[in-house]
Amino acid sequence: MEIARTVADVRKIVKKWKNEDNMIGLVPTMGFLHEGHASLIKKAVKENDKVIVSDFVNPIQFGEGEDLESYPRDFETDTKLCEKLGVDVIFYPEVNEMYHEQKTYVNIEELSKGLCGSKRPVHFRGVCTVVSKLFNITKADRAYFGQKDAQQLAIIKKMVEDLNFDIKIVDCPIVREADGLAMSSRNTYLNTEERKAALCLIKATKYGERNISKGMKSARLIEIMSDIIKKEPLAKIDYIEVVDKKLLQSVEFIEEPVLVAMAVYIGKTRLIDNFSWDVEK
Amino acid sequence: MEIARTVADVRKIVKKWKNEDNMIGLVPTMGFLHEGHASLIKKAVKENDKVIVSDFVNPIQFGEGEDLESYPRDFETDTKLCEKLGVDVIFYPEVNEMYHEQKTYVNIEELSKGLCGSKRPVHFRGVCTVVSKLFNITKADRAYFGQKDAQQLAIIKKMVEDLNFDIKIVDCPIVREADGLAMSSRNTYLNTEERKAALCLIKATKYGERNISKGMKSARLIEIMSDIIKKEPLAKIDYIEVVDKKLLQSVEFIEEPVLVAMAVYIGKTRLIDNFSWDVEK
Repeated sequence: MEIARTVADVRKIVKKWKNEDNMIGLVPTMGFLHEGHASLIKKAVKENDKVIVSDFVNPIQFGEGEDLESYPRDFETDTKLCEKLGVDVIFYPEVNEMYHEQKTYVNIEELSKGLCGSKRPVHFRGVCTVVSKLFNITKADRAYFGQKDAQQLAIIKKMVEDLNFDIKIVDCPIVREADGLAMSSRNTYLNTEERKAALCLIKATKYGERNISKGMKSARLIEIMSDIIKKEPLAKIDYIEVVDKKLLQSVEFIEEPVLVAMAVYIGKTRLIDNFSWDVEK
Repeated sequence: MEIARTVADVRKIVKKWKNEDNMIGLVPTMGFLHEGHASLIKKAVKENDKVIVSDFVNPIQFGEGEDLESYPRDFETDTKLCEKLGVDVIFYPEVNEMYHEQKTYVNIEELSKGLCGSKRPVHFRGVCTVVSKLFNITKADRAYFGQKDAQQLAIIKKMVEDLNFDIKIVDCPIVREADGLAMSSRNTYLNTEERKAALCLIKATKYGERNISKGMKSARLIEIMSDIIKKEPLAKIDYIEVVDKKLLQSVEFIEEPVLVAMAVYIGKTRLIDNFSWDVEK
């Protein structure tokens, strides 16, 4: 496995791969890899001839007062995992390799305003911009994203369609701890008590999944899910929302395929979870 | 020469070309081709194995009240010229082939606010978005732009750098009519009297070029150029500005390489012209 530190390094490797007609898979990450990332990487390794994992804590997707500085990093462990999983290249650039006097941004405002975007106004603009850069640098044929970041996934899919990127977006199911908590690098912020409290997210998710039905009022679903979170004293709801799966607009009644997404603060840590519902599934 | 009407058509042709290791040149145009476009196309044909000319009046770069509807079109004549110049493919899509529920935009706000951008707030966002799409659709190795649209050229170059597009931007000098008027599809809007009046642009440009010098105050240069335009009763200055060549910010004194750009209304028609000045050239 090679560690590429510069755009030029990646381009050189990719050029060689393309000449040999290899299919390239890209797994964009911010590092501190867990089993969720591993599931994406395994799928990428299985489906492509060559796999690039990018390992880059992208500063422009963090807003002011967010956890850019404290975001967990462990490149050595990431490297070992990638090596073990059969990754060909880790792209691990410095910030100034990716950004110098950056003036250009890719934005998809309408899909970025609600859900996580309402509290994180620059977040998805930062995600779209870095992902566009990674697509252009790696020229990947397929890119792998987790369903845990459901809004991000919908945004990336729409961006690919709108800007005609010639890449297939492959989405992978949420990977959970044994007790059901969705895996996240931010779970490391939780102390023992908070870790227990965090289970209210999966409880609400499961309860919502069991009780959702065609024709139901979204407000009713949100109410019964909120009631579960509210029972947990350490939890504070940021949002629970029901939106259409393509353009992420709020829906009043559950008729078309929807995404039910939530963000909940457990102490100071903001966690997310979600489920999708398809008509008469 | 092939006429491609869909993205899928272009992708199919490009895939074949790439398999045969061809270098691809792209000349993005809005059609109604004149000698200025022809100079770009000739250069592209000379420098590449295959050349695509896109011929698409891009609605999202026109603001409200601008000339989207009346913008001149003549696809038949464009086709003949391209054929004659050795173009391989004209990409001539319908609007709904390029845009359906478009939500994603590429923007480079800081470089887009001044000069033409101050009166045309959505213009360069529309240009960056369509050019990104064309880059992704054609996977060209080189793209050709005229120096007449100097702000557009600077913006595209910065966008390519910022988003890591793997494409070389080739810029070509302004092509002028025999009497010096910069070629433009919009010149057809001018009546006989206005056509004569339009020469004040080249007069001011030439006078500015002869009188610019290191250390000069930009305001002084703008003043002497404005005086020339003001002598023409049919002309109304939109702007004359002196900006740095990379980030297009106003400069007070002429020290670093600058772009001196102007937009002038001749009757209802808005025309542009410019020149570049390099240190001690």
